[in-house]
Amino acid sequence: MPTPPNEEVSRPVIVLVNPQLGQNIGMCARAMLNCGLEDMRLVAPRDGWPNPDATASASGADQILQDAQVFDSVEAAVSGVGRVYATTARPRDMVKPVVTPRQAAREMREAAGNGERVAVLFGPERSGLDNDAVTLADAVVAVPLNPGFTSLNLAQAVLLVGYEWWQAGDDTPARQLVQTATSGQTAGKEELLNFYTRLEGALDEAGFFSVPEKRPTVVRNIRNIFSRAGLTKGEVDTLHGILSALIKMPKRPRGPKS
Amino acid sequence: MPTPPNEEVSRPVIVLVNPQLGQNIGMCARAMLNCGLEDMRLVAPRDGWPNPDATASASGADQILQDAQVFDSVEAAVSGVGRVYATTARPRDMVKPVVTPRQAAREMREAAGNGERVAVLFGPERSGLDNDAVTLADAVVAVPLNPGFTSLNLAQAVLLVGYEWWQAGDDTPARQLVQTATSGQTAGKEELLNFYTRLEGALDEAGFFSVPEKRPTVVRNIRNIFSRAGLTKGEVDTLHGILSALIKMPKRPRGPKS
Repeated sequence: MPTPPNEEVSRPVIVLVNPQLGQNIGMCARAMLNCGLEDMRLVAPRDGWPNPDATASASGADQILQDAQVFDSVEAAVSGVGRVYATTARPRDMVKPVVTPRQAAREMREAAGNGERVAVLFGPERSGLDNDAVTLADAVVAVPLNPGFTSLNLAQAVLLVGYEWWQAGDDTPARQLVQTATSGQTAGKEELLNFYTRLEGALDEAGFFSVPEKRPTVVRNIRNIFSRAGLTKGEVDTLHGILSALIKMPKRPRGPKS
Repeated sequence: MPTPPNEEVSRPVIVLVNPQLGQNIGMCARAMLNCGLEDMRLVAPRDGWPNPDATASASGADQILQDAQVFDSVEAAVSGVGRVYATTARPRDMVKPVVTPRQAAREMREAAGNGERVAVLFGPERSGLDNDAVTLADAVVAVPLNPGFTSLNLAQAVLLVGYEWWQAGDDTPARQLVQTATSGQTAGKEELLNFYTRLEGALDEAGFFSVPEKRPTVVRNIRNIFSRAGLTKGEVDTLHGILSALIKMPKRPRGPKS
């Protein structure tokens, strides 16, 4: 499947250590595919493998489950891998670098750039990784979250690590004004000026600018309103239509200024 | 519950529009609490409210469900809110700013800093938000993910928006060496030098430095190995113990250099 601009990087391996529920394995596959990750490795899944519950909850990410490799031990699952991260929620009594998912993503891409294979370990639902598995890792990944409620389900932990991995290689602009083919192109300055001039002419005619010396300021304010809106050609046409309709309205006698 | 350093900011409201499954509403509550968000609003939940399925899947985030307010319309749910974001997976045929969750988080904190209440809309599982709900919003939030497989379940979408919101106010160091009370403090330079000197003395005695003019370089390399490890006091003690044990080993006759 197409995953530019992330497509040229070797992707991290996701290792689920002693996962319990097939349903969670399937949801992990879905989260992995969301993030363009495809290499799932299972260490001694509790209910055996393959597991139909996994497929039922994978929401279309079945291929990842079909390609998943099963191992007897964490050591076997990470053989051939150059760098291992262990995800943990609770602190461990060991001296180990602890990184945020965002930092892990940066490091994983750097390592991948140096031709190193990277794996991330996720422990079983109830207990998390045991200390031996954590010891195998080069660093621990801990997700900064509400310290009063850090428990994430397995698929959500996989999603957050994968999400950060994807973001680290993604160049979507932080903020953009989306223009689809039918919603049209941005209006040019000339089209905007035409509309402004026409509107201001109509307002002159209607006696809107009651204090002539304030006219330039008021005109500027009005133009800023429309300029901020980032109008398309189609929207300028709509505004012309609105103006035409209002001009043609039956004239009410104007009362005294309030 | 304690959620420093995020505690002083007004938090975004999570609005679930026509959510279908109670189970998903419960998982959303859990994801919200993970991210320190507590104000859930429901617009016409399909299966009514309260819904026991929601509680069953909230994994302890029950209070959020108990406090959730139910509304008939999106308009009613966001009354009193100053800024609204709409989450969508598929592009809409309208001209609207589109932001990443990371950018949305920055903007939401800015707005909150200006005393503005912020809400984020999430659509029903199957179809997402309808265009009228999107039109209500000031901007659309779209999560950059694998374009070949963008479908997120409801709770995962809530989690990613909430996660970014939490990160934007979190000051966890990207990488740190964790030291727990029992794993001990970092060793001082003096303790390290004591160990280095003792090790190098033992190596001198053992005839390790066979080429005397290379000794300074080799010593430097050895010291770098241990220096990189960022040793604690306890670990230096362990290394002293290892050295003592090795020194006391029955000596084998040394063979010719290989």
